[in-house]
Amino acid sequence: MASTQQGVPSAQEGIEPCYDLAHLAHVEMLTPKLEESLRFFVDVMGMIVSDQQGDSVYLRGWDDYEHHTLKLTGSTTSGMAHYAFRTSSQAALERRVAQLERGGVEYEWTEGDLGHGPACRFRDPDGHVVELYYETQWYQATEQTRPSLKNQASRFPGRGANLRRLDHLNLLAQDVKGNRVFMQDMLGCRLTEQIVFNDGSEKGAWLSVNNKSYDLAISEDHSGSRGRFHHVTYAVDSREDVLRAADICLEHGVHIETGPHKHAVQQTFFLYVYEPGGNRFEIANAGARLILAPDWKTIVWNEEERKKGQAWGLQTISSFHTHGTPPIDPSLK
Amino acid sequence: MASTQQGVPSAQEGIEPCYDLAHLAHVEMLTPKLEESLRFFVDVMGMIVSDQQGDSVYLRGWDDYEHHTLKLTGSTTSGMAHYAFRTSSQAALERRVAQLERGGVEYEWTEGDLGHGPACRFRDPDGHVVELYYETQWYQATEQTRPSLKNQASRFPGRGANLRRLDHLNLLAQDVKGNRVFMQDMLGCRLTEQIVFNDGSEKGAWLSVNNKSYDLAISEDHSGSRGRFHHVTYAVDSREDVLRAADICLEHGVHIETGPHKHAVQQTFFLYVYEPGGNRFEIANAGARLILAPDWKTIVWNEEERKKGQAWGLQTISSFHTHGTPPIDPSLK
Amino acid sequence: MASTQQGVPSAQEGIEPCYDLAHLAHVEMLTPKLEESLRFFVDVMGMIVSDQQGDSVYLRGWDDYEHHTLKLTGSTTSGMAHYAFRTSSQAALERRVAQLERGGVEYEWTEGDLGHGPACRFRDPDGHVVELYYETQWYQATEQTRPSLKNQASRFPGRGANLRRLDHLNLLAQDVKGNRVFMQDMLGCRLTEQIVFNDGSEKGAWLSVNNKSYDLAISEDHSGSRGRFHHVTYAVDSREDVLRAADICLEHGVHIETGPHKHAVQQTFFLYVYEPGGNRFEIANAGARLILAPDWKTIVWNEEERKKGQAWGLQTISSFHTHGTPPIDPSLK
Amino acid sequence: MASTQQGVPSAQEGIEPCYDLAHLAHVEMLTPKLEESLRFFVDVMGMIVSDQQGDSVYLRGWDDYEHHTLKLTGSTTSGMAHYAFRTSSQAALERRVAQLERGGVEYEWTEGDLGHGPACRFRDPDGHVVELYYETQWYQATEQTRPSLKNQASRFPGRGANLRRLDHLNLLAQDVKGNRVFMQDMLGCRLTEQIVFNDGSEKGAWLSVNNKSYDLAISEDHSGSRGRFHHVTYAVDSREDVLRAADICLEHGVHIETGPHKHAVQQTFFLYVYEPGGNRFEIANAGARLILAPDWKTIVWNEEERKKGQAWGLQTISSFHTHGTPPIDPSLK
Repeated sequence: MASTQQGVPSAQEGIEPCYDLAHLAHVEMLTPKLEESLRFFVDVMGMIVSDQQGDSVYLRGWDDYEHHTLKLTGSTTSGMAHYAFRTSSQAALERRVAQLERGGVEYEWTEGDLGHGPACRFRDPDGHVVELYYETQWYQATEQTRPSLKNQASRFPGRGANLRRLDHLNLLAQDVKGNRVFMQDMLGCRLTEQIVFNDGSEKGAWLSVNNKSYDLAISEDHSGSRGRFHHVTYAVDSREDVLRAADICLEHGVHIETGPHKHAVQQTFFLYVYEPGGNRFEIANAGARLILAPDWKTIVWNEEERKKGQAWGLQTISSFHTHGTPPIDPSLK
Repeated sequence: MASTQQGVPSAQEGIEPCYDLAHLAHVEMLTPKLEESLRFFVDVMGMIVSDQQGDSVYLRGWDDYEHHTLKLTGSTTSGMAHYAFRTSSQAALERRVAQLERGGVEYEWTEGDLGHGPACRFRDPDGHVVELYYETQWYQATEQTRPSLKNQASRFPGRGANLRRLDHLNLLAQDVKGNRVFMQDMLGCRLTEQIVFNDGSEKGAWLSVNNKSYDLAISEDHSGSRGRFHHVTYAVDSREDVLRAADICLEHGVHIETGPHKHAVQQTFFLYVYEPGGNRFEIANAGARLILAPDWKTIVWNEEERKKGQAWGLQTISSFHTHGTPPIDPSLK
Repeated sequence: MASTQQGVPSAQEGIEPCYDLAHLAHVEMLTPKLEESLRFFVDVMGMIVSDQQGDSVYLRGWDDYEHHTLKLTGSTTSGMAHYAFRTSSQAALERRVAQLERGGVEYEWTEGDLGHGPACRFRDPDGHVVELYYETQWYQATEQTRPSLKNQASRFPGRGANLRRLDHLNLLAQDVKGNRVFMQDMLGCRLTEQIVFNDGSEKGAWLSVNNKSYDLAISEDHSGSRGRFHHVTYAVDSREDVLRAADICLEHGVHIETGPHKHAVQQTFFLYVYEPGGNRFEIANAGARLILAPDWKTIVWNEEERKKGQAWGLQTISSFHTHGTPPIDPSLK
Repeated sequence: MASTQQGVPSAQEGIEPCYDLAHLAHVEMLTPKLEESLRFFVDVMGMIVSDQQGDSVYLRGWDDYEHHTLKLTGSTTSGMAHYAFRTSSQAALERRVAQLERGGVEYEWTEGDLGHGPACRFRDPDGHVVELYYETQWYQATEQTRPSLKNQASRFPGRGANLRRLDHLNLLAQDVKGNRVFMQDMLGCRLTEQIVFNDGSEKGAWLSVNNKSYDLAISEDHSGSRGRFHHVTYAVDSREDVLRAADICLEHGVHIETGPHKHAVQQTFFLYVYEPGGNRFEIANAGARLILAPDWKTIVWNEEERKKGQAWGLQTISSFHTHGTPPIDPSLK
């Protein structure tokens, strides 16, 4: 009855689930329009600025407990500079580094950044930069952000979409399977759902490191580019909050790509927009859905099932399969 | 920066969180009115019957993945016969049993029950019967309960309160601290919030075994009785679902004790009712709130803070401090 | 500053709004699959059967105060047999009949039906049968449907989509403008919104008789047929209720045509499905939106605005412009 | 079958409902703390400032179509300076004035105020100042408040509680019945619900002038004072919005008197707070509830029914029966 999906050191019957990674910790998003992107995240999305340094502004949702979950960095282009997981302990961090060594993965240690300590930095097979760290700085509320209830990281802002917390990240990869197996074998991620076409090719993978049904998704990149970003997602409390976010995006002239609607995969209630820098951004709610089973059996969606579209029949918009950031290198077309 | 709240073998700096328990698995509730209690859980709460045997009916919410999460057993009185955690693996079960041995806790192995395999059975200090098991039977949907989306345990019922899944259990105990420490040291539970009065006495404890902010709560029993039950809680998807449950309870003449309102502790949006057998039952929603931090710092509420009542100022109803099941032994009054 | 949109006897400055019609009262829907349609309305939509007679079943939402708002009639085809408005008084009924006479409209008196008294029956220019009546029978709750709160027509069912009350009706017409002007001049309807293309042709009209923003909508019929039905709509309390209705339709295999999404016109939050007989049916919520201004200025949407799709950008599905009931007479194609 | 509750010129069988009043138009609230009250209404409640003049600031909800619905005036005390109804037409205004003359009510004409034309001003029996007017100025959106959808008065603010529109007013009166009959006979209000105790004394009356289930409520004043104010209410779109308003009030240190909960009378989902000037203020939602029946039968609640408390059992907080503004003249105690 035990799970077969954990991959450390290799997937086999009876292996215990790995809890070395605690959660997705932050994403560094690049934007060619820093001012406008910042206004979007603060005024429209309701995020809170923790700090800034150089060309970067550090942001968080009102219930994110760390110093930041979004690092917004001015750049010549869009896309993602790196993303990070926090480990469950210092020992867990060391176990993962040892596993990277065993796997022959090149890595380096960084001194950390505003808000967190030393990080082990490496690339996934598609080239995205990943960091792992344990030492962190809990967000310290200011007079303006102090909550009334002390079990809350900061005050509910009452501004725009009132994003609560970082939820998950979606990356593009030329080889979905290769990246998926890497995340399982090296980091102990668990594969909760996936799309496998009739020819056996993997088109999408949803990986979890805790009780959330996914923390990282990988979608196929048909462009020939590498290291590209599909979207990052923040959670709100209810489906009504997602609908309200759509109302607010409409008022602010934000480009709505698709939604609100309910995904068949993972059943997330979604809204996809483009932030001013061109990156796709999702506001989502999953209700009370959690993966509590330690031996969850991966849900595999086949080609016919995917053709049915989203849960209530909405056809997936074509740009969802093509738009990623940074834009495709024209020499690859 | 690491947590100090995990208690295996003793609470100390830098210890890693324990993930041996996967989740609260089920509760066996006793009722002197089996027929009426069953009607309440099926018709009013929208639960689904998996099976029955002898004087017991096995029930679950539409998204509970196991055979059952509520075992409703006809009896001469109300209260709770036992409750169970599922462990994260067979090895985790064995580690917990070894820890019970080290702690000098008496236990026995049962052959299991409908829906799950061998269980290690013991009592907590206040006398509640606890079971731990790993082997389980996933719920198999029938033609009537087969969902349209295959990543869902069974069909959304569209009936009554449409309870989604078991959320947590609240037990009464004469010695809150003693029971709390037992759950930490023996089972690896993490203490996320607690109430400690000015004289140092502990009045309530909220313990978690996963990313939910609590799976088990312990409240002080002033009655002189032992082994009593305060309530069990099922989750729905939104606060609106809790309000709707109140509308439905009103229509069915169900006794509403208090709510809907928002707890200050844990911020749960709650509705408390009495099921026909006299047991308190809660329908709740926690929005997107999760404890993702592996080094969560226990939130301690003091006497003055508790006097403020619930989050929006509702004073706690006095029966909340007195009503438990089974009724108090009159010889103890 | 006064309105110019009321048409009795002709649209002019300073004319007072007409309140002779109280509200849309009921729709008689034809279905070739009476049994299945009935199961849809009762089990999936949560409606309540008041009565039946011959091939007709009389249904209502839990907050509809009259005997019925939907008369479901077995037939060889789909479509709408007639619809009815209740007038604000007997005198108001007589004023409307006098106006029909002035307008040269042929009409007849019927003895009424189960649930209401004598009705004046006539056809609109496109051929739909309309009835006006005042005398009615308030719904009398039974033991099973008696509400706990006496200001409510019947018990909240806690079943399926829990439709609350009839909201509005949408009819197809070859000549939108002709039908729209008829409803204004003959019945005192007020035009709250409309679609007018660049060549001056009217493509849609939304008419109200009370503070709801519309009770009747008219959409262009391109088929060459006459007297066809587009859809009828019931209201639920929140957008979350509409989303839940979509979940429930998914579980029951109901064909979802489009939605949930938000209309730009009237801002209704909609879900369109086909009931088993083939008729389009809408579950909708309008939040707290009401037309309180007695001099509301008709909102005119032009061709370019309509191309933008629905409020959040969803393109209108093509079947929305073609599917109506009964099916088109093949000789007209 | 016709209504008996309309009172012009006297209540009798078969009389037609009166639609001369279109809706409650605005309330002038007095506050001894203008700055703080203004911050409350703008920052916490999300209202929009239209204008200011002298000691008054003119405010509205985002969907209020007139220039203002709340006139906030700095004063030495709290309470209400006047309130106003807009009539359905100029002729309707004249009919009501003629009726006041017939009733021997003293009145005067004012030149109007910012945002509306000439008003007929008089006092109700308890001394509250009432105005009636027809000519009005529709709100003209600015660049900052222009909505994306043109059928909306102004942009959804995405700030604080996002109040949508003025909903109703609740006044205190020594003689509930006297005031209630006056509103029916003089202004054509319809009595939708009331509380009548066993001795025949009227304790509360809910009056409507359109399809909303009430626009004006009258509660008994036990204080010996006259002309006092109980509360004014703004509508939001859903119950979830009311809950969110409670979260926001909590964060801003706003005094929550009671709620959120559901009234038995009128079934309004309510939240009562005190604005900084001391006036009670309500945020509410009524779902899709409307009074569409032209012959609605007044719902009469008796003494026993009232003792049951609110819909889900919450006991009415005692301050609800004593707190009104301005504070009671100490000489009356």
